[in-house]
Amino acid sequence: MKTLNELKKNAKEETGQIVSVANAADAEVLKAVQDAVNEDLCSFILYGDENNIKTLSAKIGLDLSSDKITVVSEETDPAGTAVKAVHKKEADILMKGNVSTKALLKAVLNKEYGLRSGKILSHVALFEIPNQDRLIFLTDAGMNISPTLMEKVEIINNAVKIAQGVGIEQPKVAALAAVEVVNPAMQATVDAAMLTQMQKRNQIRNCVIDGPLAFDNAVSIQAAEHKNIKSDVAGMTDIIAVPTIEVGNALYKSFMYFADAKVAAVVSGASAPIVLTSRADSAASKLYSLSLALVSSKKF
Amino acid sequence: MKTLNELKKNAKEETGQIVSVANAADAEVLKAVQDAVNEDLCSFILYGDENNIKTLSAKIGLDLSSDKITVVSEETDPAGTAVKAVHKKEADILMKGNVSTKALLKAVLNKEYGLRSGKILSHVALFEIPNQDRLIFLTDAGMNISPTLMEKVEIINNAVKIAQGVGIEQPKVAALAAVEVVNPAMQATVDAAMLTQMQKRNQIRNCVIDGPLAFDNAVSIQAAEHKNIKSDVAGMTDIIAVPTIEVGNALYKSFMYFADAKVAAVVSGASAPIVLTSRADSAASKLYSLSLALVSSKKF
Repeated sequence: MKTLNELKKNAKEETGQIVSVANAADAEVLKAVQDAVNEDLCSFILYGDENNIKTLSAKIGLDLSSDKITVVSEETDPAGTAVKAVHKKEADILMKGNVSTKALLKAVLNKEYGLRSGKILSHVALFEIPNQDRLIFLTDAGMNISPTLMEKVEIINNAVKIAQGVGIEQPKVAALAAVEVVNPAMQATVDAAMLTQMQKRNQIRNCVIDGPLAFDNAVSIQAAEHKNIKSDVAGMTDIIAVPTIEVGNALYKSFMYFADAKVAAVVSGASAPIVLTSRADSAASKLYSLSLALVSSKKF
Repeated sequence: MKTLNELKKNAKEETGQIVSVANAADAEVLKAVQDAVNEDLCSFILYGDENNIKTLSAKIGLDLSSDKITVVSEETDPAGTAVKAVHKKEADILMKGNVSTKALLKAVLNKEYGLRSGKILSHVALFEIPNQDRLIFLTDAGMNISPTLMEKVEIINNAVKIAQGVGIEQPKVAALAAVEVVNPAMQATVDAAMLTQMQKRNQIRNCVIDGPLAFDNAVSIQAAEHKNIKSDVAGMTDIIAVPTIEVGNALYKSFMYFADAKVAAVVSGASAPIVLTSRADSAASKLYSLSLALVSSKKF
C-alpha cells in the first residue's frame, strides 16, 4: 500500500463496525465523527452529556438522527462507560473524546470491565512519506519510555497485529540502533541482536526481524548494500522498531514537520484497537487513524 | 542563511586557508579536492604515496601543478603527518582521506603532535531542509554514544563555535527530549533542564538554551504555541542538541532519506575543524562540509 487514502478505502469495506467514543461532547471530536459518517467509514456510539452533544452537533451541522450514530447520555463516567461497551462487545473500537489520555487508559486497564489482554499497550504509527514507495510503521513513539527487551517483544507483536490488518502478513521489522554492528556499549544494538535471534527461534512470530540496523540501512537498499549488509529487512522495512521513546518521538515529528508526512496512529495491546486522536491532528489524520483501527480490529 | 550554497559562497571569501589531507591516494578524495580547487574554495596539502596520487590524479584529470595543491609524499604515516601539519599551523583544517576514522582520530588525540584542546570531540551537522526557512544544526549524531551532562555541555559548546562561524552569534539551542516537561524517569528531560539552567547561570555561554523540548516544539512555533510553551528557542531552534547518539543518528538519516535534506558536517572540539567525508557523501556534500570547516576555522 502506498497511501493512507488506500487505507481509508480498505477501511470502508470493513462494514458494520462500531466505534465507542469516550465523551463526544467536544466540537473537534464531533467533527471527526461527522467526517467519518459522511465518508461511510463506520458507526458510532457517542457517550457524554447528551445536551452538550446535541448543542455542539447542531452548531457544526452534524445530524444525530443518522442511523450510524447512537447517543448515550453519560455525564459521570464517559470514559469507563465507553470502555465497558467495547468490553461487552457492543463496540469494536475505542476512541478518545474529550477525556484525558490518562483517564481513558485508566479505564482501559480496569481489571473488571477494562480491555486488558496481559500485554503492554504501545503506540503504533503508520506514515505516508512523500518520497517513499510504501507505507512505513514506527513504534513505539509515544507510550513506553524505556522498554525492556521483553517489552520490546510485546511492542513488536502489537505492531505486527496492526500491520497484518493493513495486509502485510509477514512484516519486515528493523530493530533500530545508531549503527549496524553489535556493540555491548550500545544497549540498542544488544537488544536488536537479541530480538533478531528471538524471531529466528520462533520466540517472536509472524514477522521477520533484523537488527541492529541504522535508519539508512533500514529504509534504503543502496545504503544497506554500501555497508555490505545481507538482510531480509534492510531497505524494505515495514516496521521501524525504535530503542527508546526519544528516538521514536523525534522520528515521528521529523517525518511530520520536515518530510511532510501523513500519519495514522492507534494504540495496540488491549483487547481492541484504541484511537487517541488529539486536537493537533488534522481532520484527514483522524480519519486515517480510525481507518487503521477499522482494518486491524478483526486481528484483535 | 537558508541554503548550503550560501555557506559555500561565504567560504570562498575566507581566502588563504589550507586543508591538510590525510592520505589523498584515493580517487574519491582527489575528486573532492578537484571540485574544491575548481570552485576556488581553498588550498590543499596532499599527504600520501606520491606515485599513487599522481596516477589517480591523471585518471580523473586533476592538475597537480595548480598553485592550490602541494603534494607531500608520505607512505608510512599519512594520518600522523597530516595532523602534524595542522599542529604546526602549516594548515588550518584537517581532512580525512583514505585512512580509517579510527586511525585519523588516534593521530588527532596524540599527546605530542595532535590537535587536543582538552575538550571532547563531537560531530556537528548543518542541514538544509527543503521545507524549512533556515539552516538547522544537529549534534551529536555520530561520535558520543551516551554523553554525560558535562559532555553535553562540551558538545553544545563545540556546536556553538561552528554556528558562530556560520554567522549566528547567539545560537538558539533546543535540548531535545520526547516531551516538553521535566520527568525524573526520563533522563533526557532532566539533562535538558540542567543545561537550560546552566546557560542561565553563565556556565554555558554564547548561546540561548531551552529544554526539554520535543522535536515539534523545537522547530515549529505553532506546535510550541499549541502547548503553551513560552520560550526564546522553541520554533526558532538553530541547534538541535540530542540526548543520545540513537536520536541523533536516526534524525540525521531521516532528514537525508525522508526529507531530501542536504548536509554539511565537521568534527569540532579539536584545535582545528576536522572534515570526515565518506564515500557515501555526494560531491556537493563534501564541498559543503569543507565550506563549514572554512567559515568556522577562525573561531578555533
